[in-house]
Amino acid sequence: MRPVSIVGIGQIPVQKQTPQTLRQMAAQVVHLAMADAEVERVDALFAGNMLGDELQGQKHVAALIADEAGLAGVEALDVRAATGTGAAALRMAYLAVASGEADLAIAVGVEKMSDGVPTPVLAKALDAEQEVVNGDTLIGKNAEIMRLYMQKFDVPEDGFVNFALNAHGNARNNPNALFKDKEVTREMVLNSRVIQYPLRLFDSSPICDGAAAVVLAPTEEARAYSPNPVKILGAGVATDRFRVFDRADPLFLEASHLSALKAFRHANVHRRDVDFFELHDAFSIMAALILEAVGYAKQGEGWRLAQEMRIGLDDDIPIATMGGLKARGHPIGGTALYQTCEIVLQLTGRAGPNQLSHPEIAMMQSVGGAGATIITHIFGI
Amino acid sequence: MRPVSIVGIGQIPVQKQTPQTLRQMAAQVVHLAMADAEVERVDALFAGNMLGDELQGQKHVAALIADEAGLAGVEALDVRAATGTGAAALRMAYLAVASGEADLAIAVGVEKMSDGVPTPVLAKALDAEQEVVNGDTLIGKNAEIMRLYMQKFDVPEDGFVNFALNAHGNARNNPNALFKDKEVTREMVLNSRVIQYPLRLFDSSPICDGAAAVVLAPTEEARAYSPNPVKILGAGVATDRFRVFDRADPLFLEASHLSALKAFRHANVHRRDVDFFELHDAFSIMAALILEAVGYAKQGEGWRLAQEMRIGLDDDIPIATMGGLKARGHPIGGTALYQTCEIVLQLTGRAGPNQLSHPEIAMMQSVGGAGATIITHIFGI
Repeated sequence: MRPVSIVGIGQIPVQKQTPQTLRQMAAQVVHLAMADAEVERVDALFAGNMLGDELQGQKHVAALIADEAGLAGVEALDVRAATGTGAAALRMAYLAVASGEADLAIAVGVEKMSDGVPTPVLAKALDAEQEVVNGDTLIGKNAEIMRLYMQKFDVPEDGFVNFALNAHGNARNNPNALFKDKEVTREMVLNSRVIQYPLRLFDSSPICDGAAAVVLAPTEEARAYSPNPVKILGAGVATDRFRVFDRADPLFLEASHLSALKAFRHANVHRRDVDFFELHDAFSIMAALILEAVGYAKQGEGWRLAQEMRIGLDDDIPIATMGGLKARGHPIGGTALYQTCEIVLQLTGRAGPNQLSHPEIAMMQSVGGAGATIITHIFGI
Repeated sequence: MRPVSIVGIGQIPVQKQTPQTLRQMAAQVVHLAMADAEVERVDALFAGNMLGDELQGQKHVAALIADEAGLAGVEALDVRAATGTGAAALRMAYLAVASGEADLAIAVGVEKMSDGVPTPVLAKALDAEQEVVNGDTLIGKNAEIMRLYMQKFDVPEDGFVNFALNAHGNARNNPNALFKDKEVTREMVLNSRVIQYPLRLFDSSPICDGAAAVVLAPTEEARAYSPNPVKILGAGVATDRFRVFDRADPLFLEASHLSALKAFRHANVHRRDVDFFELHDAFSIMAALILEAVGYAKQGEGWRLAQEMRIGLDDDIPIATMGGLKARGHPIGGTALYQTCEIVLQLTGRAGPNQLSHPEIAMMQSVGGAGATIITHIFGI
């Protein structure tokens, strides 16, 4: 397998509601990423979009984006893993270049959640026959997990507050973040509306529009395209029992653990080598569970990393360095591509006021549904 | 890139309406294919399903199938290309093994079209903003193309009849074909109901339920799993302008031409080396256009291959040897995996009464939408 690097990135500001259409957003970031890599063609395009079937009445999105971007003719396929869809598109672009089938591949992720009511569409990431039929949604499921977690591990009411404060603080310096202009205080988080008990507004990532893309090339050719290539050192995808309550321990994300192990082995990297971790903080409880599953905290203690503020830019394991899903925003199909762009900026010293001190290895994790699919990528310079 | 072979196949009879659920159908063919390869685990599973979002209210299908099949933990991702979705899943499984990321990968395709009204959902393969909004459907679009084609090339009313007769004749000997028990005559085809002028019932593939799967392994290990491995010699995916009437020539399938060229080059095979061709006869006009785009007939003369009956089992270029989309059935996500299973049976001398005489090279083509994505695979022994 030949090593693969990122040689171009493209992202646009996440917005509550953009005047652009889905295809326009996607074509724009494809152009931005290709311009960044200084290429006028690619061999393959892999598109991640979760909600277009319902919100835009549109399937076959990869071919549509290819045409809109002026790339008709190119190989183009749709790839998905529910709410982890962006990382699935990155995974496939990686396989295309690693295999030698493509010399240049683009992974693009896009979501326009403002075209309708996304919550019931997002719920289709859960089991239609045995969960959705009983009224489950992703919000409800995360609230339930959070309640069990807080009860079992005796977590105080303010145990998760710093997940939101860290994310919102970091978003202030990210020009592409949805909440870049919003100053968020501890009081705002603590007093925010309860969406489903015990999950509050500030425990949840926002509904929004966004798109991002990256161009991949063989590492051995990467510097021909970019003065700042970033290597994909390893990746791993794992699944778990589909329904949370079929799992031996509903409070342990086995797929996070397994996919991280695969990626670590592939990259020959230990979790202690990781300088920062763009994790899937769609809900603050997910951030805590991921930190535990990957091994940064013992079970039941992931929330303490936030409470003791060991997740900031200068701390033990920086997370959500550009705002995370919570405050940059979580335009589903686009999310992991935003994370990838942010990781590239951090690893190449271009992250602006949030720049970490000489990071060399970054980790990214993306969650499909309530943890049934989890995708890990490890990046390095 | 390491060569890849098929080492296991699994298919179940296509039915008008199966009592099984989507996930049950898929898990069954996964088990059949794994049993055929005599393996108890795989490294990755790629699922093709086009209509589940709407018809089953279910996304995240790959992880659901993995769990239902008892494979929770495995890498599992959803892959799509509208009506060519099954071939997209095969493509990704191929990339996973070719790259070395997986040693054993399964591609599974499934569709349960009987759970609702599929026609408007299928139409989402077209442009929601500029085609569907004007009342376009895949049936309507194919009828329009057929009308233009018949007019431009002066095709008689009975010009396409043998596409249906050949497919239905071959389906009689395929135990998995939807229409295995139906005897179809020239008169039945000619007098069948006009669905949209000039497209008749027998010009269209049926709505149905079905699932099929194949297991892929590195060619260098293939005989450890199967006494009858079949090589994937090459593959190519190409797109075209998304909307038919944006194309320079709406009657030429550029993506068929391009993807076939890619696959031929990759496989180092000429179209004259191809012993039979499982093409995408979702509509008889598509069969004619594909035969032209790949080079088996001049433009405007693809239908003559049918009229002169040069497409039968003993003829120049056998197509739909086990019934094709027309008569085996076209359960969208499953279709290309059925085609792949049939190709494996033909190439290994296990196709029963329809067995071709010592075929060595087979070609498969799958169409997304009205030709915006076309995927070609070349197989050999």
